[in-house]
Amino acid sequence: MDDRILLAHGSGGVMSHELIRDLFARHFANPLLDTRHDAAILPLPGAGQIALTTDSYVVQPLFFPGGSIGELAVCGTVNDLAVAGAEPLYLTAGFILEEGLPCETLERVVAAMAAMAREAGVAIVTGDTKVVERGAADGLYINTAGLGVIPPGRALGPERLQPGDALLLNGTVGDHGLAVMLQREGLTFGSLLESDTAPLHGLIAALLDAVPAGAVRCLRDATRGGLATVLDEWAEVGVGMAIEEAAIPVKEAARAACEFLGLDPLYAANEGKVVVAVAEESAEAALAALRAHPLGREAACIGRVTAEHAGRVVLHTPYGARRVVQMLTGAQLPRIC
Amino acid sequence: MDDRILLAHGSGGVMSHELIRDLFARHFANPLLDTRHDAAILPLPGAGQIALTTDSYVVQPLFFPGGSIGELAVCGTVNDLAVAGAEPLYLTAGFILEEGLPCETLERVVAAMAAMAREAGVAIVTGDTKVVERGAADGLYINTAGLGVIPPGRALGPERLQPGDALLLNGTVGDHGLAVMLQREGLTFGSLLESDTAPLHGLIAALLDAVPAGAVRCLRDATRGGLATVLDEWAEVGVGMAIEEAAIPVKEAARAACEFLGLDPLYAANEGKVVVAVAEESAEAALAALRAHPLGREAACIGRVTAEHAGRVVLHTPYGARRVVQMLTGAQLPRIC
Repeated sequence: MDDRILLAHGSGGVMSHELIRDLFARHFANPLLDTRHDAAILPLPGAGQIALTTDSYVVQPLFFPGGSIGELAVCGTVNDLAVAGAEPLYLTAGFILEEGLPCETLERVVAAMAAMAREAGVAIVTGDTKVVERGAADGLYINTAGLGVIPPGRALGPERLQPGDALLLNGTVGDHGLAVMLQREGLTFGSLLESDTAPLHGLIAALLDAVPAGAVRCLRDATRGGLATVLDEWAEVGVGMAIEEAAIPVKEAARAACEFLGLDPLYAANEGKVVVAVAEESAEAALAALRAHPLGREAACIGRVTAEHAGRVVLHTPYGARRVVQMLTGAQLPRIC
Repeated sequence: MDDRILLAHGSGGVMSHELIRDLFARHFANPLLDTRHDAAILPLPGAGQIALTTDSYVVQPLFFPGGSIGELAVCGTVNDLAVAGAEPLYLTAGFILEEGLPCETLERVVAAMAAMAREAGVAIVTGDTKVVERGAADGLYINTAGLGVIPPGRALGPERLQPGDALLLNGTVGDHGLAVMLQREGLTFGSLLESDTAPLHGLIAALLDAVPAGAVRCLRDATRGGLATVLDEWAEVGVGMAIEEAAIPVKEAARAACEFLGLDPLYAANEGKVVVAVAEESAEAALAALRAHPLGREAACIGRVTAEHAGRVVLHTPYGARRVVQMLTGAQLPRIC
């Protein structure tokens, strides 16, 4: 482990994983601690299984095309529950406010949270507010924790991946990370690009309903670290991933922004995109279910789980080349969620 | 509401209450939102009732006599569950780290959290880490959310207060707030004073076991805003409170520190003190149960609920005078939790 915390420790990439493994997992070790997923799945006497998750939101700027830290604080946490197979029920909301923050700014954020919670059908049930001195936070940070219930018999997880499974994605990648980055840099062609922030549990429920139980192997929202990081984490269980670069939906504006900023859309954060691994025989029905939902109109099959090159994600380019998709090693886009 | 956020909005006093009422409660309004207690009590299909709570911790300095932000982040949340009558089960842990934070500091904090979670018998089950740039947070902030189950038939709340109920306290007030304040100011006589940070659910379970069901009316941990704020909040339901100043346990060192700093121990934060309202006929048994527990050896009966002066807390001094205990109006001790 390094001597000091670096921005890259918050990137969702290699250094984040090392920090979790070498520090948090070592100290917090207990049979229920889940350091590999964003929600823990827990027994609750009488209620079967619940999912519990937490995320802090430190995005800069607080407002960006397509949303704000408020919508993000609801959707990010709802989505962590949804990809665990849970029906989201309750959210907590913890605010750390900087002294001097205009109350009008706080009100806009809180109103955005409230509207998104209503849209998502979750209740914000309890909260906390701390205020720190001027300079000790920039504007505001929000933490939300979320609780959902998991229907009996539902089991999802990368350990269920099998060679031949199809890998689906519900739409274009990179929109959120690039929209925030362009806004932060004051780049005007960002106006073409909006964050994809959205609650995914409705889409996921429709997907799970459309295929036989067990056909959906694993779900993950591609947030910090992007699509590449999700696939790399899944490959770690001992399967390979073969991805067709040309099949990955990327908006023209996102592609242009990436070229301008020297970024790779595969690593850029999303806040409304889910990666789906589904049994080969159910892939068509799953894709149709995604495309029938407003949040999945541009859904695509982007590749397959393979028995070959276990542990590695291999990208096939349109020109017949192959490259290994590594996990993010630095801090490509800090403060995007 | 004011135009800008002030430190006093985080004090736990009048301005905190106004912010909750005028902003958060207005936007987040839903039947389950609980803005009057630190934990929401929620139905969970099959499981009866659960309690869900959240707190962010921004204490400065991170380490102080008697504990650190790590112990605090466990105990504060465990105690919010315990005073809701819940058995604490699970915690989430969200870290906001400042770039440049020595990893050794983080490790000390995480180890302290882990040890306290073991002592309290709760599992930290999921977490999140964000890193912000140098200067954008001071060192680290922690959010914990907590989930507990409420045994069937348990009902606690200030609406159950009745004239004649005894008001008990499990020990000395002000230790935490003053220990942190003295450490922050570099005042050496602080060495006599240690934070009382402790998980209270064991003490509370012993108390509830010792008296008939329903005898304990209401419990509250006296954190930000201190004992005075708890009593003022309780009085708001429409009862009076008559408190004997001489009966409130205060350490000699705390009294001296208060005199030196111009503070009132009634408003100073505690992290291991619970205020108990109990039916008159069970007061003796309740006090004995508190005193029999290591965290209640100095427990005392400090006053009574009254039908007179409804809505107000009246302090009787040893010299026969009376004064009304107002809710905290400014930011007496910022950043103490």
